[in-house]
Amino acid sequence: MTSTDGLRPLLAPRSIAVFGASENPAKISGVPLANLLASGFPGPVYALNASRSTVQGLRSYRKMAEIDGDVDCAIIAVGAAHTLDAVRQCAEKRVGAAVLLTSGFAELGEEGAALQTSIKEIAQKSGMRLLGPNTTGLIDYGRNLTLTFAPWKKLSVLDPIAIVSQSGGFASYVEEMAAMRSAAFTFSVATGNECDLECSDFISVLARREDIKVILLYLEGCRSGENLVASLDLARRNGKRVIALKSGTSELGARAAASHTAALSGSDAIYDLLFEELGVHRARSVEEMVDVARAITTCALPAGRRAAILTLSGAFGVHLADEASEAGFDLRPLPETAQAIIKQIAPMGAAQNPVDLTAQIHNDPEMLKKGLAAILETQEYDIVISGVGGNVKSGIGIGDAVTTALIEARQKYPNVVHAVSAWVPIDELQKFEHAGLYASQDAVRCIRTLRAATTLAEGGRPLAPPPKIAAPERGLRGTLNEQEAKHLLREIGIPSPREVFAARADDVVGAAEEVGYPVALKVVSRDLPHKTDVGGVKLNIGDREALRLAVESIIAGIGAQAPNTKIDGFLVSEMIFGRVECLLGLQNTGFGPAVVFGLGGTLVDINNVVSRRLAPVDIEESRKMIAETPAIKLLSGFRGQEPSDTDALARAIASLSRFAWEEKRTLVTLEINPLAVGKRGTGVIALDATAVFAV
Amino acid sequence: MTSTDGLRPLLAPRSIAVFGASENPAKISGVPLANLLASGFPGPVYALNASRSTVQGLRSYRKMAEIDGDVDCAIIAVGAAHTLDAVRQCAEKRVGAAVLLTSGFAELGEEGAALQTSIKEIAQKSGMRLLGPNTTGLIDYGRNLTLTFAPWKKLSVLDPIAIVSQSGGFASYVEEMAAMRSAAFTFSVATGNECDLECSDFISVLARREDIKVILLYLEGCRSGENLVASLDLARRNGKRVIALKSGTSELGARAAASHTAALSGSDAIYDLLFEELGVHRARSVEEMVDVARAITTCALPAGRRAAILTLSGAFGVHLADEASEAGFDLRPLPETAQAIIKQIAPMGAAQNPVDLTAQIHNDPEMLKKGLAAILETQEYDIVISGVGGNVKSGIGIGDAVTTALIEARQKYPNVVHAVSAWVPIDELQKFEHAGLYASQDAVRCIRTLRAATTLAEGGRPLAPPPKIAAPERGLRGTLNEQEAKHLLREIGIPSPREVFAARADDVVGAAEEVGYPVALKVVSRDLPHKTDVGGVKLNIGDREALRLAVESIIAGIGAQAPNTKIDGFLVSEMIFGRVECLLGLQNTGFGPAVVFGLGGTLVDINNVVSRRLAPVDIEESRKMIAETPAIKLLSGFRGQEPSDTDALARAIASLSRFAWEEKRTLVTLEINPLAVGKRGTGVIALDATAVFAV
Repeated sequence: MTSTDGLRPLLAPRSIAVFGASENPAKISGVPLANLLASGFPGPVYALNASRSTVQGLRSYRKMAEIDGDVDCAIIAVGAAHTLDAVRQCAEKRVGAAVLLTSGFAELGEEGAALQTSIKEIAQKSGMRLLGPNTTGLIDYGRNLTLTFAPWKKLSVLDPIAIVSQSGGFASYVEEMAAMRSAAFTFSVATGNECDLECSDFISVLARREDIKVILLYLEGCRSGENLVASLDLARRNGKRVIALKSGTSELGARAAASHTAALSGSDAIYDLLFEELGVHRARSVEEMVDVARAITTCALPAGRRAAILTLSGAFGVHLADEASEAGFDLRPLPETAQAIIKQIAPMGAAQNPVDLTAQIHNDPEMLKKGLAAILETQEYDIVISGVGGNVKSGIGIGDAVTTALIEARQKYPNVVHAVSAWVPIDELQKFEHAGLYASQDAVRCIRTLRAATTLAEGGRPLAPPPKIAAPERGLRGTLNEQEAKHLLREIGIPSPREVFAARADDVVGAAEEVGYPVALKVVSRDLPHKTDVGGVKLNIGDREALRLAVESIIAGIGAQAPNTKIDGFLVSEMIFGRVECLLGLQNTGFGPAVVFGLGGTLVDINNVVSRRLAPVDIEESRKMIAETPAIKLLSGFRGQEPSDTDALARAIASLSRFAWEEKRTLVTLEINPLAVGKRGTGVIALDATAVFAV
Repeated sequence: MTSTDGLRPLLAPRSIAVFGASENPAKISGVPLANLLASGFPGPVYALNASRSTVQGLRSYRKMAEIDGDVDCAIIAVGAAHTLDAVRQCAEKRVGAAVLLTSGFAELGEEGAALQTSIKEIAQKSGMRLLGPNTTGLIDYGRNLTLTFAPWKKLSVLDPIAIVSQSGGFASYVEEMAAMRSAAFTFSVATGNECDLECSDFISVLARREDIKVILLYLEGCRSGENLVASLDLARRNGKRVIALKSGTSELGARAAASHTAALSGSDAIYDLLFEELGVHRARSVEEMVDVARAITTCALPAGRRAAILTLSGAFGVHLADEASEAGFDLRPLPETAQAIIKQIAPMGAAQNPVDLTAQIHNDPEMLKKGLAAILETQEYDIVISGVGGNVKSGIGIGDAVTTALIEARQKYPNVVHAVSAWVPIDELQKFEHAGLYASQDAVRCIRTLRAATTLAEGGRPLAPPPKIAAPERGLRGTLNEQEAKHLLREIGIPSPREVFAARADDVVGAAEEVGYPVALKVVSRDLPHKTDVGGVKLNIGDREALRLAVESIIAGIGAQAPNTKIDGFLVSEMIFGRVECLLGLQNTGFGPAVVFGLGGTLVDINNVVSRRLAPVDIEESRKMIAETPAIKLLSGFRGQEPSDTDALARAIASLSRFAWEEKRTLVTLEINPLAVGKRGTGVIALDATAVFAV
């Protein structure tokens, strides 16, 4: 993580200069200086304003050069047109870091982008790090540092939560929604256009801070995928939990995102993969981000998925059970002895799981105490979910006895996550939070939070260590044709059909006799990645005459539909029957190469549910990939069919993923489709393949 | 809707008796009487309590017979064991309706169920209607009527919302969650075990009330599907909006639901169908129910799906656009002239859609006014969604100017739905609600509410009018074998392959010669609905020798795997090649017959996404059904294939659905799989079929 070296001037500056500081502390141009003064920044603060002699009680400088002492960090809040000059002055003064609050750069188009590039070059030459432009800046509440035009207010109690956002407006949205749940963040940064520092730089910094447990991340795109992976992995290894909201999921949203922070939104599914692998919880809403952050800073994460549900209403229990089941929790029934106790306590209730103690708990709160104890004493559960409520409307409320019973159980059984779904006003809900329970008004939100906490606890899949043996020097470049791609696959250990290449149409008959009828005939050309679409593939050709017709038809079809195609020749292959057609591919995701598996052939068009992993994966993980897709139904031998060779398939996935890892610098994409999986013991055969490497 | 006749004694009683009334008004047994007294019930109220002479200041009766006047309605709150006697006394007294608050009946098992049946029989004989048992009762806030043990409080301002719930606990959950959003219901009823009155009875009643606009429904199952359909249809025709939460979606949840209100939870997918067809919004959470109810009683429903998004932050706009796109809103760009205005107002913002006016709107609220006007004057949108927020944490808030601008726009352009997603505290949010805006703190909830409102506005699909021509008398009974099922299909107009039935194995060769090789051979037996699983189907048999082997193999296979099968004979069919295999079926759902369409053959196992409709459907609707499933990809002729005969397919769907409607009294299930769809102009062929009718 060399990119965070030298961030000291930004994160712990000894002196700060403010370009464009104005007198009125309420004006947006006056706020940064006012904030610094209000926060009691201990080092020298310099104000730059060419048209005044003092600003907010400080001497005003016309230029950086006039300042005698060193300047660690500069806040630049002048118009876009003057920013270049300000950055130049900073560079000459050997300023270590600058925060560019100004907008009007790459997010507005080409002209702005050119200006941004000039600024970046000046900074790079002088070794100055830049935050922004087009950012609201940075606030470190934990260390009393404010580099922002957002109003500053010292907060007395902080939660170990940070927000790292590509948008200042979104950071505010998250911070304010959290504030309304009485959560105060320790650190907040918006990276804006990221002309230098990116979200990953701050994740790496926060991953090393003891006062941070949870990092909230708002992303629209990513410039350096490898840095993001490394920073998220560092955070994970240091026990920080990351909750991300990635926008630009829709086509329209992605377009709007591109225009507004000039970020390139990659394929959204790739972010799903990234977050899944790195144990990041992907939240859909800000409300969800805040719910989860609030809960997991309140209490430890669940140790597993075994959950017991206890309610005062059967229907409430059913509703919670529906949601918890769908979220993948293990709602095992209470052990018989515990059920016997519950039946005694609440004969009109339900004793299995969900447990229903009935609304009688309001008349006799001892029932709740005893019920909770009966469940918790079994030590069979990682989570206990209590669904309660009171007659708030009539002013009766949930009752202190119920609240106390739940809080006491939390204290007595601290190794279990206690979640409460309670229809009570927010202030009553917060009593539970303060006592270390996950608390929600709504049952669905309760389960959503628990599910997120469980995902975070499970932590994704550890990244593979670098391989011990050096990769062979394959020298792969550019687009391979089918024959070359299959040759490569055979080297990796994935066989292809018996086939003979015919450079000219006249050689095809001889080739077919060598292979033996029936044969498949395919055109070979680098110009035709989708040769089926132009009729470039003919299957199950029984004899010489049919073969001649097939060749003519292919040539005529390409002539009509893709006249500029350079035909390299023809491939004559043996026909392979009775196998399950799968798809196995590699993609360069920007976060490292990914391996993709799913149904292949024409089945892709009716079911494109695939499983993806960052490469490499081992055999065991390959098996999981197979099991995750609908292909498993065909491969396991349904409807009386013989099962397929999933062992060979798993080996092929693992081999190909290792290859991807070895070639990650040049790999663009590789696809085997169909990969024909035979009956057990007969292996896999790559019937067709394409591969593209960097030129 | 004859079942709601005679509900006057329950819904507008002139006199009420309370069985088991106790002196202490705070005790659960004292509450019903205390409520009646507190509500100022205008007619006579009689208390029954054998052990006292007065109860809560009233004379106490020992038995119903002692009461001189008529009793319209009785509240029975005695133990399960005494309920039978109480009901008997009511019947003798010619009481019109009784509310059975007591639990301990069918929900607890066989003994309770027997008791419940006895009660039901007594009531039926005397014409007395029953609510419950195992219910919290009924409260009509709108007419000051309380028949419940839940605490009563007169509410001064009511919202036109009713809750109809199978569970009293769940009704409380919904009511209380609504109360925390300052929504007060006009009517609340829990139907409990539904030994007589069901949810549909109350939906029918509420559908006719002018003080109700929105009906919230909590269901775990349904006793009379036809009544539910009729009541929901009545509600729809009368302009009432129904928001339903159906639980028991998970296997565990369904089991728990069955035990606690003794309702039978049908297949959950059938409820999706029911709600979709009848324009009911199915909510997932109570929070969602309340959000939607709150919004749509605040303001009219959107007239369409054209939505404009306007925010103070680009990222907020992207996030809203992602969600709105996914929810199916039409986010058309602003017309050029409006874009020009926006660019003038906010040169650093974005002008297409989402519109970003930047956070400058806080410094210059005129920007927001002008921006809103620019959008609304276009008359291009049914919905305008404003994403705003303020610095709540620092005590600055959203600012009155922003709030005012949004509210004024609402007043000036009342034909558009104004939605605001605002990160502000709840009390500020309610200012928007009171002014007639849909208001949410969270962007995702904002869009979720709008989507629900749009679904409700669209109102589902009108139910088909009864057919004008009488159905033919087909006299269908029991299970048909393949040959019989195909015969039936041919009558409906769905052809099957040329095929000859061979009653004995020896006749098979002759049959094949009649059909012409290659042939398919299938065993015919009512005992084998899944004949493929036991090797009962052999395809593509080329000659006599292969046919003999096929017959032997079928007989041997069945002998080994299903030895008790009665073989009716064999069907020898022509082979049909090169067609798309679909599935077309009928199901008796309990809500009427449904027609089901999707991919067929082995493709069902890898993609079982089907479309369903309540029968009958016309050709146009049949086309929609085809287009909704992945089958459309294969049928439209992808990858250079010729398109299939979707016209014939649509005709087959419509015919079959009409048949289902005609035979709805006896139809259990019918399935054509595969239904082979040929190239355009060549029609469809039912390759296999099963059918079951009531015996």
